[in-house]
Amino acid sequence: MNLANSALLTDLYQLTMLQTYHAERMQETAVFELFARRLPPEREFLLAAGLEQALDYLENLRFATEELDWLAGHGGFSPQFVASLEDFRFTGSVHALPEGTAFFANEPILRVVAPLPEAQLVESRLINLLHYQTLIASKAARCVLAAPGKLLVDFGMRRAHGAEAALFAARAAYLAGFAGSATVLAGMRFDIPVFGTMAHSLIQAHDREEDAFEHFAAAQPGNVVLLLDTYDTETAARKLVALAPHLRERGIQIRGVRIDSGDLAEHARRVRGILNAGDLAQVTILASGDLDEYRLRELLAAGAPIDGFGIGTRLDASTDAPTLDLVYKLQEYAGLPRRKRSEGKATWPGRKQIYRQRTANGALTGDCLGLEDMPRTGEPLLVKVMENGHRLAPSEPLDIIRDRVRMQLAALPPVLRAGRGEPPYPVEIAPELRELAARLDQKTH
Amino acid sequence: MNLANSALLTDLYQLTMLQTYHAERMQETAVFELFARRLPPEREFLLAAGLEQALDYLENLRFATEELDWLAGHGGFSPQFVASLEDFRFTGSVHALPEGTAFFANEPILRVVAPLPEAQLVESRLINLLHYQTLIASKAARCVLAAPGKLLVDFGMRRAHGAEAALFAARAAYLAGFAGSATVLAGMRFDIPVFGTMAHSLIQAHDREEDAFEHFAAAQPGNVVLLLDTYDTETAARKLVALAPHLRERGIQIRGVRIDSGDLAEHARRVRGILNAGDLAQVTILASGDLDEYRLRELLAAGAPIDGFGIGTRLDASTDAPTLDLVYKLQEYAGLPRRKRSEGKATWPGRKQIYRQRTANGALTGDCLGLEDMPRTGEPLLVKVMENGHRLAPSEPLDIIRDRVRMQLAALPPVLRAGRGEPPYPVEIAPELRELAARLDQKTH
Repeated sequence: MNLANSALLTDLYQLTMLQTYHAERMQETAVFELFARRLPPEREFLLAAGLEQALDYLENLRFATEELDWLAGHGGFSPQFVASLEDFRFTGSVHALPEGTAFFANEPILRVVAPLPEAQLVESRLINLLHYQTLIASKAARCVLAAPGKLLVDFGMRRAHGAEAALFAARAAYLAGFAGSATVLAGMRFDIPVFGTMAHSLIQAHDREEDAFEHFAAAQPGNVVLLLDTYDTETAARKLVALAPHLRERGIQIRGVRIDSGDLAEHARRVRGILNAGDLAQVTILASGDLDEYRLRELLAAGAPIDGFGIGTRLDASTDAPTLDLVYKLQEYAGLPRRKRSEGKATWPGRKQIYRQRTANGALTGDCLGLEDMPRTGEPLLVKVMENGHRLAPSEPLDIIRDRVRMQLAALPPVLRAGRGEPPYPVEIAPELRELAARLDQKTH
Repeated sequence: MNLANSALLTDLYQLTMLQTYHAERMQETAVFELFARRLPPEREFLLAAGLEQALDYLENLRFATEELDWLAGHGGFSPQFVASLEDFRFTGSVHALPEGTAFFANEPILRVVAPLPEAQLVESRLINLLHYQTLIASKAARCVLAAPGKLLVDFGMRRAHGAEAALFAARAAYLAGFAGSATVLAGMRFDIPVFGTMAHSLIQAHDREEDAFEHFAAAQPGNVVLLLDTYDTETAARKLVALAPHLRERGIQIRGVRIDSGDLAEHARRVRGILNAGDLAQVTILASGDLDEYRLRELLAAGAPIDGFGIGTRLDASTDAPTLDLVYKLQEYAGLPRRKRSEGKATWPGRKQIYRQRTANGALTGDCLGLEDMPRTGEPLLVKVMENGHRLAPSEPLDIIRDRVRMQLAALPPVLRAGRGEPPYPVEIAPELRELAARLDQKTH
């Protein structure tokens, strides 16, 4: 049984509702849309990500025998209902934003059209998959915007929330413009570049720091990046200057150094001076340690001579905004638009489309959230990606998505690129959508 | 290949260091300890969790053929080194805090003693496993302390960071004292109770709310919990009062209602009044929607008549403190204590033990962090759980861990139980440990 695609990777209430739909023969077509109710105050835009895994989930979803046995033994489900799940498949269609597309509050990034039980069961895992990669891609994009031209690497596996988060963070950061990840399995799975230097333990396991540098360089001649801050950063830089000629005689170049603690800007300046004076001007400086887009902006504003950054914990857990208010709501059932009216949580009904407006040179000027069957000015962003439970196109290569992100980020209004939220990106609600909502509100239930 | 136990689920630098250790034949015994450098300002104590999965990882760790092939093709690793990984096994010993034990800054929760390469490779995944469950168990314990006697259920799967996080959050919350989780697969995997009601979509898919209530109740006669806030909470409560006699005639009892939006305390009071007046005093009220320990305290302080809480996003992502500064550091190699001295990140060297002091009635009064071979007053907390790569005891049943947590929470100083951090829990550093650190600091490297 594959954990990632398990049919029981869902909330129990989906199954109790499916049992009701089964008893009442409620199998008509349902339309659900997945969107962010609002953006966190720390985000001016989001980047859609995770569609690849969401489609894989829908295509492969079925109940394993042991899952059906467990449900039968659970006590809450009738034998007839459990038997009906044996042939459960997702047979619906999906519209979605291509991965890497920028989006805003209330804009659907996914629409599922399927018989009600199918569209219902998949809610929990679809949100789970799209939420996390969207969260990380959006955070990573902020880092990319904060440090143009710098090498950025995901270092966050150890404090990502579990194995899947670590792998998906590597993928989402890469598609948002990171150079790669330290997580080896992400390299194997997604074919993204992996990066790695050394840890303090290698230095500590040697009696002399210079021996550790030399042994590491000899064992890794093609990738010599040395960690300077185990004891004293500048002393270590001087040891390296002394060591470099001996390594050069053996044909080994030092490629870079890493600084992981203290005042990174000040250490980088001093180390740069020591390296340059020691004929090591080509050696790059990497920094790490509690970094995020805010620290990157500070360090670069302070003129820190740092060439690359390892960004870990604060990326993989998106610590300043660790969740998004992403929801999946019924918008239509059996041909009729539906609207939830809960206080503070009301939704826009019907099958919607995002119409994006641009200037002649491609800069984004605003979106209109309208109905799919009443086109507005602008490019419609949601495209059909699945029909009858099958994908309509092969997986998008990550490099294509990276190119899309690059163009998206370049086209955003400068105030958003700079990480400021005022004025917010304009998203107009089409009048026909407002009218539909008002009409539904007059119905009693 | 099992994702959770993959040998490539690690940082690349572990493998570049292993290549160095291989080249230099550095195979002597290393001692690493895993601890929190500091607690987040929002936490007064942590609960150790995740040991079960950590031991499972260590016991089953090996390189799959496809992983070795990938490493061979990566370019950074010599054929001899890759060949040496074929027989890689973890053969070391492990000391650890039993799951559910409260701990504080600088106190090791795990100690690994193994040949250096083995102890090194496992760093990333050991932190990843222990970090997340410790994070969630600690957050869940705060909710338990905030709402004594209330039914608490994990509702967080959809915004947990991936599939593994969702499953581990359910486990960690349960061991910390939650009644169970909505995540079905967690119920199957960990044998913990699962809970579920209904979503707004079931109501919306019906033309009349009362029909939705009736159909759901008929299909789930043993578990009728109805969601009230799709349109208007109090109107829905009145519909339920009208419906109850008809259901009773069919032998169906309404067990509970759920409120998910608006002013939860005020709605709960009004709904309680409507239900009591309608002869439904036995129907319980559940609340959900952006809840955490702070909101629980507010709601209960306001006297809200709420019997149970579904706690989701803010639990599974521990949103007020989404990561812990958990690290894994070399403390001894080849028989000699080691110390990292990086600015702000210096560690206490040697094999340590936590000695916990209690009053006669079991209340905790303080810990002493000392050396294992120089016992101090108090109960030593770290116990040996693995030797020669094999567990010394079978998995601990979750109910045993729950009992331990209950006792731990009851024994904490009242100020910590109340969620206040002043005065902090006293952890004394033993003088012999300070002397050892000072002695190592005089060495040059």
